[in-house]
Amino acid sequence: MDLLKQKINNDGVVLSNSVLKVDSFLNHQIDPVLMKAIGEEFAERFRLDKVTKILTIESSGISPALMAALTLGINVVFARKRKSLTLVKDLYSAKVHSFTKNETSEISVSKNFINENDRILIIDDFLANGQAALGLLNIVEQAKAEVVGIGIVIEKSFQDGGELLRNKGIRVESLAQIAALEDGEVKFKEEVLA
Amino acid sequence: MDLLKQKINNDGVVLSNSVLKVDSFLNHQIDPVLMKAIGEEFAERFRLDKVTKILTIESSGISPALMAALTLGINVVFARKRKSLTLVKDLYSAKVHSFTKNETSEISVSKNFINENDRILIIDDFLANGQAALGLLNIVEQAKAEVVGIGIVIEKSFQDGGELLRNKGIRVESLAQIAALEDGEVKFKEEVLA
Repeated sequence: MDLLKQKINNDGVVLSNSVLKVDSFLNHQIDPVLMKAIGEEFAERFRLDKVTKILTIESSGISPALMAALTLGINVVFARKRKSLTLVKDLYSAKVHSFTKNETSEISVSKNFINENDRILIIDDFLANGQAALGLLNIVEQAKAEVVGIGIVIEKSFQDGGELLRNKGIRVESLAQIAALEDGEVKFKEEVLA
Repeated sequence: MDLLKQKINNDGVVLSNSVLKVDSFLNHQIDPVLMKAIGEEFAERFRLDKVTKILTIESSGISPALMAALTLGINVVFARKRKSLTLVKDLYSAKVHSFTKNETSEISVSKNFINENDRILIIDDFLANGQAALGLLNIVEQAKAEVVGIGIVIEKSFQDGGELLRNKGIRVESLAQIAALEDGEVKFKEEVLA
């Protein structure tokens, strides 16, 4: 998605060989025009998949998920993150390990909002190790709903989450795939393959 | 805002005399069509106020804030909540006490995204005791920016946040004002005054 790649090139900050900071338009400050374009792109890619609901995770997944849901004419549900859950009644929950923060948190979704008739599109801002996506997949499984695919704004293709998910047979659509972060530069996958 | 009040009447659940559950359309599952209408309503009410940026707080403020920002053609920034901040460099931060959870958390915004030239519209999903709004106001003050007003989706007028903020001379625009939650029923302010 060219608009997104331009934005990453112009406004993203490469902090190290593994960290790309995009807090000026994606996960702290948000550019609504870009989010709308991202939502429309996800909607277009999953247009024929009879998606009934979008599932995302707070907080940075909410904006792209909301815009995709608006375009598809369906609702979005965001999983909540907590350190630990005392009350699990009426909730689907799953553990998610963050390698960056080196901590495990629990994510949860009310049983009221996903059921066995749902065809779920999972959307998130980043895909790195795939732990958040695995947690969301686990929740969809518990609800006996079907996953039609995963839409990711920025995939760090040099980490193993994308391969992990695709090896499970899951369709992963990433709007920008980053092959490497080197010498302060973002190398997109197409550039490396070209 | 009639569409919102209808939604509250139809889908809101009164859990007690102080708790209204709206997780089917506002703060867990999100109805994007309603959010778009809410965003447009905020944009209309603050249309002449030369707003340069919207400030909200994760997670439930993000959707209405994003839609208002889209309509106004500006960016939105969401404050992050943390138990405590170890790294405060380059961040504005403020303490927010939650009476419901009886805990104090810290909210923060990067200094990169608000400055003294900004005219800020604060948006949040709920106004009860006003603690989150006070924290956001504190952050805007630290940045020496100006607050043009506060847009609230649902104000619990029977709690003191609205009065507290209006007594400070701040313009508060609430799309639904709830005067009371009694016997499982929502009483809107207009109904009580009528």
